[in-house]
Amino acid sequence: MRFVDIIEKKKEGQALSKEEIHFFIDGYVKEEIPDYQVSALLMAICFQGMNEQETAWLCEEMLYSGDVMDLSAIKGVKCDKHSTGGVGDKTSLSLAPMVAACGVKVAKMSGRGLGHTGGTLDKAESISGFQVNLSEEEFFKQVNDIGLAIIGQTKSLVPADKKLYALRDVTATVNSIPLIASSIMSKKLASGADTILLDVKFGEGAFMETSEKAEELANCMISIGKYFHKDVRVIISNMNQPLGNAIGNALEVKEAIATLQGNGPKDFVELCLEAGSIMLLQAKAAFSKEQARAMLKETLQNGKAYEKLVEMVKAQHGDVEQIYHPELLPQAEHVIEITSKEEGYVKELHALQLGLLAMRLGAGRMVKEDVVDPSVGIVLHKKDGDYVQKGESLASVHTKQNLDEDWLKDFYDSFVFSKNKVDEKPLIYKIIEE
Amino acid sequence: MRFVDIIEKKKEGQALSKEEIHFFIDGYVKEEIPDYQVSALLMAICFQGMNEQETAWLCEEMLYSGDVMDLSAIKGVKCDKHSTGGVGDKTSLSLAPMVAACGVKVAKMSGRGLGHTGGTLDKAESISGFQVNLSEEEFFKQVNDIGLAIIGQTKSLVPADKKLYALRDVTATVNSIPLIASSIMSKKLASGADTILLDVKFGEGAFMETSEKAEELANCMISIGKYFHKDVRVIISNMNQPLGNAIGNALEVKEAIATLQGNGPKDFVELCLEAGSIMLLQAKAAFSKEQARAMLKETLQNGKAYEKLVEMVKAQHGDVEQIYHPELLPQAEHVIEITSKEEGYVKELHALQLGLLAMRLGAGRMVKEDVVDPSVGIVLHKKDGDYVQKGESLASVHTKQNLDEDWLKDFYDSFVFSKNKVDEKPLIYKIIEE
Repeated sequence: MRFVDIIEKKKEGQALSKEEIHFFIDGYVKEEIPDYQVSALLMAICFQGMNEQETAWLCEEMLYSGDVMDLSAIKGVKCDKHSTGGVGDKTSLSLAPMVAACGVKVAKMSGRGLGHTGGTLDKAESISGFQVNLSEEEFFKQVNDIGLAIIGQTKSLVPADKKLYALRDVTATVNSIPLIASSIMSKKLASGADTILLDVKFGEGAFMETSEKAEELANCMISIGKYFHKDVRVIISNMNQPLGNAIGNALEVKEAIATLQGNGPKDFVELCLEAGSIMLLQAKAAFSKEQARAMLKETLQNGKAYEKLVEMVKAQHGDVEQIYHPELLPQAEHVIEITSKEEGYVKELHALQLGLLAMRLGAGRMVKEDVVDPSVGIVLHKKDGDYVQKGESLASVHTKQNLDEDWLKDFYDSFVFSKNKVDEKPLIYKIIEE
Repeated sequence: MRFVDIIEKKKEGQALSKEEIHFFIDGYVKEEIPDYQVSALLMAICFQGMNEQETAWLCEEMLYSGDVMDLSAIKGVKCDKHSTGGVGDKTSLSLAPMVAACGVKVAKMSGRGLGHTGGTLDKAESISGFQVNLSEEEFFKQVNDIGLAIIGQTKSLVPADKKLYALRDVTATVNSIPLIASSIMSKKLASGADTILLDVKFGEGAFMETSEKAEELANCMISIGKYFHKDVRVIISNMNQPLGNAIGNALEVKEAIATLQGNGPKDFVELCLEAGSIMLLQAKAAFSKEQARAMLKETLQNGKAYEKLVEMVKAQHGDVEQIYHPELLPQAEHVIEITSKEEGYVKELHALQLGLLAMRLGAGRMVKEDVVDPSVGIVLHKKDGDYVQKGESLASVHTKQNLDEDWLKDFYDSFVFSKNKVDEKPLIYKIIEE
């Protein structure tokens, strides 16, 4: 088999065989196939796509390029969730404790952020001492003992994805549904959970720009799930405005804590309840969505979800005082209120722009090597559909230095006002539970 | 400027700027841009193409990546020709002496063959002692003195093409009209001739499969010629059956000699006359095509073209005895006649198959490192439209070993017969002289 013939075949729009996909991934991981041939194939895949069967085989080859976690030492159904990422997405930090408080095991492996979307690990590490690198034994013990853990992915999982992602990043071949789907799913499958809930976001602040593309990606991942006989369900949600009010690592932890104390922003709480109820159904911990939602709401009212967060932080060596007293979390030197120069209803609130503004404050990474500043970020006081009076505060900006004119201009540009009342856009666009 | 943004731009179907194309070629030649990014861009170009302006800029950047020959030391109009290659294409060996015999300077740089099409240099080197590596001074002096030389391309010309071609070859990105056009034209322009005649072949034995694709490539190269203010003209010719009768290096030299002695195969002689007459018009050595054809025919009748070949072989240290007595050229151990098992008119004669059969005898290269055997090959006795009786000889096969059954089966499969008389397909499909 010659790799150039495989490239040619895909270039001509033909489907690759299982053997050809094996030859590709196996040869690439073993460094028998050079980067320059792989990047040509990746670009051909961007143009010609892959059918469901090819995508499942690709995912399978990637999955078995490394270790696959065996979670059988953890009792009960192990649930995992994954979000394709967006601005202000601190869902895991509230959702995992809520679901665990309902008695379901949440064994979650998370990633770090790159670009304008922060990663769960970066957010969790705003808590002093919080350890994301646990040994397998520690991880199993913690999930068995308290029902949840959020850790970093171990290096031995899906080496093919690490190599491929690094190459895609520099060859403009990130944006391809079969490549994105096989990358996400190979990591989720390698993490070994029994059920997977995916939150696929669309909009300007997300990977997928339109709801159609998000649905295509969702269906592609569900199809991979079927091939592996895994219970995979999907929420497709809108990321045109940031999720919740806080953008920035410690600020998002504070918002997650507030949510667990019953004081969360409406949109964020709704997403946690919806996602959580699907996870409870997947774990067969509830009979109906209504029952599941009621169970989850109760964990917010009776403090059980909050307690789970405290237990998790304690188990992972974080400073629980910062959970009891969130004002002890890293604080930026300055908190600057930005007041509105206009009056009207918020018609658009550009998530991508706000994500980039937070990144410019130091909350995100331009390149992998950048160190994030946990203290900085933005807390929005107005969101889509809200009425704003001139002089009212739009947001508090937590920053180390003063804000320059460019930054302020871009901030004001991220709000678009309307004289007339505007309809709120629904956060959850669709749920796919096949 | 980031190269990944250039890849992305082309992937999205946008035209690249002159600066971006400069950044690409300059960075690649200086090894500042890695192969894996370049192969991704090349694949994106295969899908999205390049407009006329981009293609001309690409050719320009490639051209100036190395030295450009200055032929001003050679008096008069310097003509060059190039064929996109095909099975049995020994045109340069007859055409260059014919045109030179009409007083036009032919300063030709040729290439070697890869795959089923042989290169002019390989053919010329069938003549013992023939030197294709001349110094610039020797080259200029020879063309000034006798009017023609056929040499190999010097290493300092178009280094960008050498790097790009090697990469395209292993990444399934050879087949792209702007990439083919800029590769051919950069080499022709670097060779420094005043006029260029291109023979673009189509059919199964050629680079371009259809006449439409050949015409597209031709127009692309003419457009590049206009950008550089060069007189570029094109013949589009049919390569569905081999050109002439001989396939194989020394066998083709013999056929070229016979042609110069007035005994050439009809199709091959016609191509030489047509191509030569365009070259004479380009050099302003004739007023009309009719006059030019008459001049060229005369060189075949009065032995002047044959004398030019002798002069060239002598000047390039080849053994002229082999020209006077072609039976002294390398001879294969066996000459096997293959007789027809069928009766009828030859309807199809598969050039690609015959080219590959000659390659299997040792006449061509599978990989660059292969050494070609000058003696082996095939001499066809029947061509498209000919009537064949059962038992009549189809071809003489010149070979070192006996022919195995597979080879013979493939040979017979390359002839398709018809009971009814078939129309001869015209060799020359179109001439573009803008």
